Amino acid sequence: MTISIVGIGLIGGSLAITLKENGFADHIIGVDINQTNLDKAIRRRLIDEDTDLDDALKKSDLIVLSTPVDVMLKMLPHVLDQVDQQVVMDVGSTKVQLMEVVREHPKRGRFVATHPMAGTEYSGPEAAIPNLFDHKYTVICNEGESDQDAIHLVRQLYESIPMSIASLDALSHDVHTAYVSHISHISSFALALTVLEKEHDEDRIFELASSGFGSTVRLAKSSPDMWIPIFRQNRDNVLDVLDEHINQLARFRSLLIKKDYETFYKLIQESNKIRKILS
Amino acid sequence: MTISIVGIGLIGGSLAITLKENGFADHIIGVDINQTNLDKAIRRRLIDEDTDLDDALKKSDLIVLSTPVDVMLKMLPHVLDQVDQQVVMDVGSTKVQLMEVVREHPKRGRFVATHPMAGTEYSGPEAAIPNLFDHKYTVICNEGESDQDAIHLVRQLYESIPMSIASLDALSHDVHTAYVSHISHISSFALALTVLEKEHDEDRIFELASSGFGSTVRLAKSSPDMWIPIFRQNRDNVLDVLDEHINQLARFRSLLIKKDYETFYKLIQESNKIRKILS
Repeated sequence: MTISIVGIGLIGGSLAITLKENGFADHIIGVDINQTNLDKAIRRRLIDEDTDLDDALKKSDLIVLSTPVDVMLKMLPHVLDQVDQQVVMDVGSTKVQLMEVVREHPKRGRFVATHPMAGTEYSGPEAAIPNLFDHKYTVICNEGESDQDAIHLVRQLYESIPMSIASLDALSHDVHTAYVSHISHISSFALALTVLEKEHDEDRIFELASSGFGSTVRLAKSSPDMWIPIFRQNRDNVLDVLDEHINQLARFRSLLIKKDYETFYKLIQESNKIRKILS
Repeated sequence: MTISIVGIGLIGGSLAITLKENGFADHIIGVDINQTNLDKAIRRRLIDEDTDLDDALKKSDLIVLSTPVDVMLKMLPHVLDQVDQQVVMDVGSTKVQLMEVVREHPKRGRFVATHPMAGTEYSGPEAAIPNLFDHKYTVICNEGESDQDAIHLVRQLYESIPMSIASLDALSHDVHTAYVSHISHISSFALALTVLEKEHDEDRIFELASSGFGSTVRLAKSSPDMWIPIFRQNRDNVLDVLDEHINQLARFRSLLIKKDYETFYKLIQESNKIRKILS
């Protein structure tokens, strides 16, 4: 099967490696507005050839859109205008607005909305790695709006990696990702700024940063080109979660001010329940 | 050399493994108020024998205190009362109050205050691992208040691992650890509570938690028995940093409300500078 991947970055590039290695794809075509990215992808053998979007659409059985989510909104209707029997899937982090722009499209059935829950804080084709998706979860959204053969193909793709598949409606997806992904990034960005502003004149103190610090701020390395479009599209949900997170921090603040260490202790015990969720 | 380790948990136990393996210690004595911990430590061969504190002091060249920091405050003066030429060091996360309780002690010189900047979110002797400290930084506080031979011995110990050594006064230490360690824990506790409270009726959604989420909340598994005494002793510094962190989050909130994505973008770019600090 020939697969085109539009946007050869961390996610698109890692998917290219995976699907070529496991034999799901015979031939991978890369499309990117950035020719340097395409050159890197060819050199790293992530893709077999590069071409423009319209040419790629003609040559492919499956088209994977893995651009930032703002680009996706504009690109998807244009792509669907041109498909015949090909299948189109996206791998973006937000879904409600994307579903909206193609809801009435005559070729809506050829599109499958997905979100593999995997990533790192790095971006670009140089960040692509094998095994990024292995044994993680992927979401397929609004399955009922896609043609059955399209769903079947996309499920086969994810099962070939292998990934587990969860089926969600777009609204639930966007709420849940605000909780299990987007807020973590805002928290890391804020933590990085907190420390950078305070410690700007004392370089050596960062030598003392423990692995715990590294773990909580590593997402602050993430690209604004990827994340601003996500926050823009999922603004309302992110605001809800952010409000709640600020309230939790304010509760800890108030307990410290009152020196109520007993309640603080109980809240830590409560938060320890995250153990049952994180392996 | 015979070394007693008082408090055989993650840190004490890992130190025991390391110093036995690299030959710095010939014989390691474990002391713990919890006999189950001692039994585990013997079974895991973290220690060669266990005994009570007073007996351990008599038999040892070096005594390492690795209890929670509230216990340390009470224990250190008692330990110094009994030492002759032995060296005593601690490995606790806070320093100002500890320095205070022994400032006028006639045996103050035999004590060296240290803080190896390493750990995991787990605790107890079962969490002890080799290589926890390798090539990390350790802090030695108020070196001028310790006898030169005591400092020399403790430096040799850390160099044997090997760890790099930073020298700081206790006040600076407590400010800096609030920034590079303590606030990360509060942020994780709060993030865990935020998500747990919202998602309590939807178990499966945690299947979707990405690795980014896991990274930012993993510290929320940390033990309140260790952390409440730290927050209690370092309350004022932690409050300062927490205020600043809440302000940073409130800034992001306000930008989302105003849909000022341009400024938001610049702040993410600013926070990306953490790349130069984190490897």
